[in-house]
Amino acid sequence: MEDLTRERAQTTFDVNAMKIIWAGGQEAFEFHNKLASLVAHDPVFRKDNRPRMTHKELFLGGIRKAAHCNELAIELGLTEADANTLRILRDEKAYDTLHWNMFVPVLRTQATPEQQKKWLPLATSMAIIGCYAQTELGHGSNVQGLETTATFDPYADEFILNSPTLSSTKWWPGGLGKVATHAIVHAHLILDKDYGVHAFIVQIRSLEDHKPLTTITVGDIGQKFGNGGNNTVDNGFLRFNHTRIPRTNLLMRMAVVTREGKYVYQDVPKQILYGGMIAARQTILLEASVELSRAVTIAVRYSAVRRQFGFDNNNREMQVLDYMTQQHKLFPLLATAYAFRFVGQWMETLYSEVMSQFENNNFSALAEIHACTSGLKAITTSVTADAIEKCRKACGGHGYLCSSGLPELFAAYIPACTYEGDNTILFKQVGKFLVKTMLNMNRRLRPQGTTEYLADIHLHTTKDCEVSKDDDWLNLDFVLDAFKARAIRLLVTLSRHIQKFPNQDDGFEELSIDLVNVAEAHCQLVVLSKFVDKLQTTIPGLNVKQQLHLLCNIYGLSLICEHAGDFLATGYLTRRQANLARSQLRRIFSHVRPNAIALVDSFNHTDHYLGSVLGRYDGDVYTHLYMEAMKDPFNNADVIDGYKTT
Amino acid sequence: MEDLTRERAQTTFDVNAMKIIWAGGQEAFEFHNKLASLVAHDPVFRKDNRPRMTHKELFLGGIRKAAHCNELAIELGLTEADANTLRILRDEKAYDTLHWNMFVPVLRTQATPEQQKKWLPLATSMAIIGCYAQTELGHGSNVQGLETTATFDPYADEFILNSPTLSSTKWWPGGLGKVATHAIVHAHLILDKDYGVHAFIVQIRSLEDHKPLTTITVGDIGQKFGNGGNNTVDNGFLRFNHTRIPRTNLLMRMAVVTREGKYVYQDVPKQILYGGMIAARQTILLEASVELSRAVTIAVRYSAVRRQFGFDNNNREMQVLDYMTQQHKLFPLLATAYAFRFVGQWMETLYSEVMSQFENNNFSALAEIHACTSGLKAITTSVTADAIEKCRKACGGHGYLCSSGLPELFAAYIPACTYEGDNTILFKQVGKFLVKTMLNMNRRLRPQGTTEYLADIHLHTTKDCEVSKDDDWLNLDFVLDAFKARAIRLLVTLSRHIQKFPNQDDGFEELSIDLVNVAEAHCQLVVLSKFVDKLQTTIPGLNVKQQLHLLCNIYGLSLICEHAGDFLATGYLTRRQANLARSQLRRIFSHVRPNAIALVDSFNHTDHYLGSVLGRYDGDVYTHLYMEAMKDPFNNADVIDGYKTT
Repeated sequence: MEDLTRERAQTTFDVNAMKIIWAGGQEAFEFHNKLASLVAHDPVFRKDNRPRMTHKELFLGGIRKAAHCNELAIELGLTEADANTLRILRDEKAYDTLHWNMFVPVLRTQATPEQQKKWLPLATSMAIIGCYAQTELGHGSNVQGLETTATFDPYADEFILNSPTLSSTKWWPGGLGKVATHAIVHAHLILDKDYGVHAFIVQIRSLEDHKPLTTITVGDIGQKFGNGGNNTVDNGFLRFNHTRIPRTNLLMRMAVVTREGKYVYQDVPKQILYGGMIAARQTILLEASVELSRAVTIAVRYSAVRRQFGFDNNNREMQVLDYMTQQHKLFPLLATAYAFRFVGQWMETLYSEVMSQFENNNFSALAEIHACTSGLKAITTSVTADAIEKCRKACGGHGYLCSSGLPELFAAYIPACTYEGDNTILFKQVGKFLVKTMLNMNRRLRPQGTTEYLADIHLHTTKDCEVSKDDDWLNLDFVLDAFKARAIRLLVTLSRHIQKFPNQDDGFEELSIDLVNVAEAHCQLVVLSKFVDKLQTTIPGLNVKQQLHLLCNIYGLSLICEHAGDFLATGYLTRRQANLARSQLRRIFSHVRPNAIALVDSFNHTDHYLGSVLGRYDGDVYTHLYMEAMKDPFNNADVIDGYKTT
Repeated sequence: MEDLTRERAQTTFDVNAMKIIWAGGQEAFEFHNKLASLVAHDPVFRKDNRPRMTHKELFLGGIRKAAHCNELAIELGLTEADANTLRILRDEKAYDTLHWNMFVPVLRTQATPEQQKKWLPLATSMAIIGCYAQTELGHGSNVQGLETTATFDPYADEFILNSPTLSSTKWWPGGLGKVATHAIVHAHLILDKDYGVHAFIVQIRSLEDHKPLTTITVGDIGQKFGNGGNNTVDNGFLRFNHTRIPRTNLLMRMAVVTREGKYVYQDVPKQILYGGMIAARQTILLEASVELSRAVTIAVRYSAVRRQFGFDNNNREMQVLDYMTQQHKLFPLLATAYAFRFVGQWMETLYSEVMSQFENNNFSALAEIHACTSGLKAITTSVTADAIEKCRKACGGHGYLCSSGLPELFAAYIPACTYEGDNTILFKQVGKFLVKTMLNMNRRLRPQGTTEYLADIHLHTTKDCEVSKDDDWLNLDFVLDAFKARAIRLLVTLSRHIQKFPNQDDGFEELSIDLVNVAEAHCQLVVLSKFVDKLQTTIPGLNVKQQLHLLCNIYGLSLICEHAGDFLATGYLTRRQANLARSQLRRIFSHVRPNAIALVDSFNHTDHYLGSVLGRYDGDVYTHLYMEAMKDPFNNADVIDGYKTT
């Protein structure tokens, strides 16, 4: 236990100031502390017992916590945003997560004022509970491929919802399986012809006895990855057997169907629609930084407690964190957690900028922002999912125990790579956007926002890297230029190859691996550049900026080493410069090592939130591994019931 | 469902011949079919219900299956090796896995003939059940760091086993938690001084009432990753409070302690000790190929069933397997499964060669074989663990359901990266061995076995790649030479850097990341070269060799693309040659595509063994996803008990 105390004593920067930066300001920091402590001390929010619970127990635990959150939010007078923070801190998804994050926002953006007047009070008081039913058993990313139909019956003034095939069964919506009374259902709107997919609000369960309505077949899709994980959420399936709903249950803000069955397109202020998308992506980015920071906290703290081989000055085995291979595994992830945090915070400011542009009817930035947020969603979730497993492996055997917290962190997090746009599909879209932007530059269209650097194409394709010694790589301008040159050069080559195809779409498909590669290169640049921008701002606190500078260097240089193929193949770096990056990176690791524990303490996670015996703040790992094992009911008897009879 | 039928109709090679190659011969193929079918049709071996079971139910299911396997083995008159195949095919680890794979072999190698006469009949008749207790709560890879002591009491002629600290608690042994009556315990042997860690046989539970003996504290270490996973195994903890055992319970083949307490070293035929190690590693390699092939089968079959976006000739959405990004994800893994299979089969022949060398007292190959098998263990398990998760992600959302089989495949497999030598530590050892081999060449020691190519150092460091057009990369000699040159050049540079350190060990630690990198490069070469060797043999069956040639190309070229940084940084490949590898790889994908389903069918997995709704042989995925969901007891009632009261 003295290991972590000694580590903390050698800290050279102001940890409190770093916590405030991580939280995004003094006020956010204090509010986070208050809520996190409240959750940590409330027995209803206990979660260490989750791995030992059945699917049904997990679900019931989830609805109990959801109800408690709702009561607390009312009692404390929390805003909706603050209540969301409370739900995040309880660290357990349930039906209410989807109700508040999907159902309510869709009503706000896609329902008419009149519809909102009817449905929103019911939803926000939780008199009705909603879910979001889009994907089907046989249809995911391709929304237009959905099979559910909503056919207008002009005589009854109703829509008839139908699931014509097994593969049209709605599948996955959280909250649908056992809880939701209503669903936002995506279905093809059929009038005189198919008007494409629209959203409808459909009651699925009785408000009296909670039973499914007669034309509805609904249930839970079964167990998912992990002992706890997302098994607290009742992801469900849903089939319609000619279910009738009033015509007015079509969400009509974008398009109205009249009493006569005429389709009338509405001219809607787009900022509301796209604003929602940016807000959702920003949530995903911040969540990535939080989940990554949790895994890194556990692995870094345990690596300072765990000893193996060799001998330190006190003739004890060495702390695992002192091994170069361990630093090489963990420090780039530590740096990445900070990098993702800052790009998430940047997106908050982007949001307000963009909203004011939209309000002035300026939508010129829309395509770039869509591509940028798509790419950042894909890169942060991919990296975080892989990183959690890397951290688990870095904890050796004990990382495999549920009490390490890492199995559940992984199992609960990985769906982020698939939902809200599968990452591979998103990267392909971003790649296409970049190629098109490059080709449009020939037509004198200036690239915007995060693609502005493409305008300097001449500079970045002709000027090679000027690094001549290790220390040059400490200069972030050199690092940033390397990322720009790599992205531009890959993009130039790819665009040239795609132009050779008679049909551009064939080129996009044939070269889709390169599209993904270019998109990743671009997104890494965006993340790096927002980290560098952050370092240009005033950063209070002793040595805080200096530590962040080192982390920014680690983020950049570790990616240069990992993707050396790109940097060399584009001719931007020489073999010597790539080697210098490698040796400089090693040197920076040794500067960060003394502050490693303080840098994970700065994430400010409570032991409750971490939920890991290995990551405990006090480092008392082995006592608690033992205590956790003793909690398994399996250990209640020396000879287990049924042992002799089986 | 017609999708897979159509896919199979377009096969251009002899699937049956490929199955025989995969199985390792006609006899192995037939025996596998017989046992696999027996297991698949025996209701005791049902496993689809595992995700819905509690820890205790999983354990009880495990002991039931273990008992049934034992009965079947007797009934069918199976050899020990064949009984092991039966245990593998039941696809569920239990205490008997450890009893047969650890306890019995250790008795055979480390017990004296007299001790074997006493213990082996008890063990092989399962009158006693054993486990292997080495690792401790605070001590893993560093065996000499173990804290458990066995102190000789000359008056009583006994050893006193003791766990002096919490961190000395034995932790992880499978079968220990609830079942084992005996344990092979590793402890420091204390006579007049500490003679280091030795193995003892210790009774821990009564053979009458199965209760732990009075000086023993024993139990289960709690739940592990996954819903089923390894939770069928009772990994346990064990503490000794001055536990007394007869002196003769020290396994004395390597060293005897006399009645007088004198330590007498025995000169043992080493082939038996090292033979066990090679056999164990070979098992791990073949297991890696099997687990990887399972994940690939699931992902490839489902990618032929699943459709998304675009339109094929029949105006349906495109099969996901036709997307280049999907082929890029899955085909290299398909090729890797075959590559791992052949390197595993090669190790079988290595075993008999090496045994005959050892019998002639020729141990010169020992260090090389140790390094080679260590490296192959590390590379095959690392790649397989990551690949299972890649396959899961490639299945979209449905891969996250337990019924896809992929979550459990992952959770059950990943410990292989940590046990039997943590992969990072193994790679470091291999890297050190390679550096030392390189430096010894200056002293005219000729490299052996898999390192023989290092003798051609001059050739490989001076002659660069001669590929001049795409098709040149179809020539496997070019591919193999590239891997040799890359490994040698990385090694030359690293050796030079390490020689600059006054203390070689400091160099090894400071440059350990490069050690790992060199080791990986070497191991990839070994795997590739055994694949190429396989292609030099007679391979019967229409187009079988041709398909394997393509897969071997994919294995090599995809690694060249992935590690382009190495190949470019060592100056062996030009940027143009690396690009040619990339375009040639794409072209080979299109040749493999029509046979993709047949190539996974060749792995010859039954639906029972696959345990995946997505990977079903008949492709009837959606019906069975639905049926699996309906099996969740959670769906027994429309309104779940406790819903209203919670």
